Amino acid sequence: MTSTVKLTLVEAYQLAYQALLRNGFSAAHADAVAKNVTAGERDGCHSHGLYRVLGCVRSLKAGKVAADAESTLIDNAPAILRVDAQGGFSLLAYQAALPVFIDKVRHCGIAALAINHCVHFSALWADIEPLTEQGLVALACTPSHAWVTPAGGNQPLFGTNPIAFGWPRQGKAPFVFDMATSAAARGEIELHRRANKPLPEGWGIDSHGQPSTDAASVLQGAMLTFGGHKGSALAAMVELIAGPLIGDMTSKESLAYDQQSGSSPYGGELIIAMDPERFLGADKEMHLARAEVLFNDMAAQGARIPGERRFKARQHSEQFGVELPLALYEEIVALS
Amino acid sequence: MTSTVKLTLVEAYQLAYQALLRNGFSAAHADAVAKNVTAGERDGCHSHGLYRVLGCVRSLKAGKVAADAESTLIDNAPAILRVDAQGGFSLLAYQAALPVFIDKVRHCGIAALAINHCVHFSALWADIEPLTEQGLVALACTPSHAWVTPAGGNQPLFGTNPIAFGWPRQGKAPFVFDMATSAAARGEIELHRRANKPLPEGWGIDSHGQPSTDAASVLQGAMLTFGGHKGSALAAMVELIAGPLIGDMTSKESLAYDQQSGSSPYGGELIIAMDPERFLGADKEMHLARAEVLFNDMAAQGARIPGERRFKARQHSEQFGVELPLALYEEIVALS
Repeated sequence: MTSTVKLTLVEAYQLAYQALLRNGFSAAHADAVAKNVTAGERDGCHSHGLYRVLGCVRSLKAGKVAADAESTLIDNAPAILRVDAQGGFSLLAYQAALPVFIDKVRHCGIAALAINHCVHFSALWADIEPLTEQGLVALACTPSHAWVTPAGGNQPLFGTNPIAFGWPRQGKAPFVFDMATSAAARGEIELHRRANKPLPEGWGIDSHGQPSTDAASVLQGAMLTFGGHKGSALAAMVELIAGPLIGDMTSKESLAYDQQSGSSPYGGELIIAMDPERFLGADKEMHLARAEVLFNDMAAQGARIPGERRFKARQHSEQFGVELPLALYEEIVALS
Repeated sequence: MTSTVKLTLVEAYQLAYQALLRNGFSAAHADAVAKNVTAGERDGCHSHGLYRVLGCVRSLKAGKVAADAESTLIDNAPAILRVDAQGGFSLLAYQAALPVFIDKVRHCGIAALAINHCVHFSALWADIEPLTEQGLVALACTPSHAWVTPAGGNQPLFGTNPIAFGWPRQGKAPFVFDMATSAAARGEIELHRRANKPLPEGWGIDSHGQPSTDAASVLQGAMLTFGGHKGSALAAMVELIAGPLIGDMTSKESLAYDQQSGSSPYGGELIIAMDPERFLGADKEMHLARAEVLFNDMAAQGARIPGERRFKARQHSEQFGVELPLALYEEIVALS
């Protein structure tokens, strides 16, 4: 049995915030990160929960993230905003850019936000929700470190390159998915290695390019994309549009920059948002109601609405708090 | 052995054009369709080649496509253009919208084009290339007919919902992928049924929701998405952003509208394009060169660059023409 510690969401936030502050992050960055990891824990996404505080501090100690970066906004074009995170985590930069970005989306109907020169450890759904809350449709993606081989290849090149998408629903939790384009999360493979458990087929190859179910071999070799060549094509798209298109690093460049410090990926994130109001005008309600028919048809046949599980966990956590493994709790408390 | 007929690209175009004209399409629509199917044949995409002429004429005879529709442009917002195809095929409407759309992309940096009320039979890569030729990055998607079940479901609801993406390359064929979010194309399943061949696992379920490798049962039941719940999430995204978001039909609505006439899907297509120039300004060449490094790294390890095979077939066809099965040739000649 694993010992756990029960925390309210405020306590979880405080635990993260104080550890980040104590380790040198500015109050603003510590606040943004603590809010983000608390949200991950609250939503049952433990791999993006408080455990991430450890990685954030590790990145700082390795000199791979700025503790007090102040982001700068760059207004590139009527529908393009860039925010330079100046080597800090993406979160505070995104926060600074959000109101200007939303204005652009509302004015132009569609707009793109590039977060540049940011260290990225956080789940993309957290960047989608502030947009769906405004009634906007949103898409986000980011490269990571070169861990994934393209279909037909045998060397790591792509990142796990997540794609997230959100659709606003009136009076309901939004439709949100956030998925790696790799077959599995890297953290999952690490968990298998620690537990000495074989991987499912199709997750990775060893360093000779051969299919392998040995976690350690796959971590040395390369992960595979989900869905074969189709997932690989999507992963390549993420490299391109959240890399060179926004003037930022590919996953390979990010891994080289990391110099084996085990820090979070460094690079860019692209967010595209669209305003249904500008597409549909007076017909908006009618057409959004047709999307509800689609969701009802999904639910009626037992298909899961993406995000559903997370919002259920959120309701539970808001009422009952979260449980942290005691070891993790103690590790965060001891961080200095 | 199958008898074939050798045609130059001009002859292939003429064969298609005359058949479409003879069967009642206006010269402008016949021209747009003939160019499109000739391009499919030329690129070795036989399922989007001249065989499509049969379906176009079938849709017309069923009263499911307008023979001489004149599209109308609607300027919704600085970065949103809509073109109403008025019940005609998407192609001519797209052609009409393209110059205005490109202006919007160049001005705003990113823009969206919705093609509405169009009958859709054509491959999306053909809509991507006019944009990559202009140095733009482009994304396109469209619902189809409700043939595909969502992950966890057992009834057809989504279309095959293709997503296409293009990235311009200087002096080279663009990086272009165009993939159904279903595990296989519906045409592939029909070919298996005709050949009485079992399907690979994972393509579909029968009408009781059970996995099946019998093509006829799957055509009666439902197709599956590629990549499990991830492909399903993407298919849902396409339903939403190229359906309700642009005020057009979902795949289920399109299939209901079809009334079992076997016509092409009716609804909308969403195209999003971005201008690297507006993202990168003076640094554009430097960053586009970094994308070339990514492509070289893919090629160096034997991974295929999406689109490569198609552009190779194109080179060959431009020099040597195309070969059509004699039966198909005769069927098109006999169409009246």
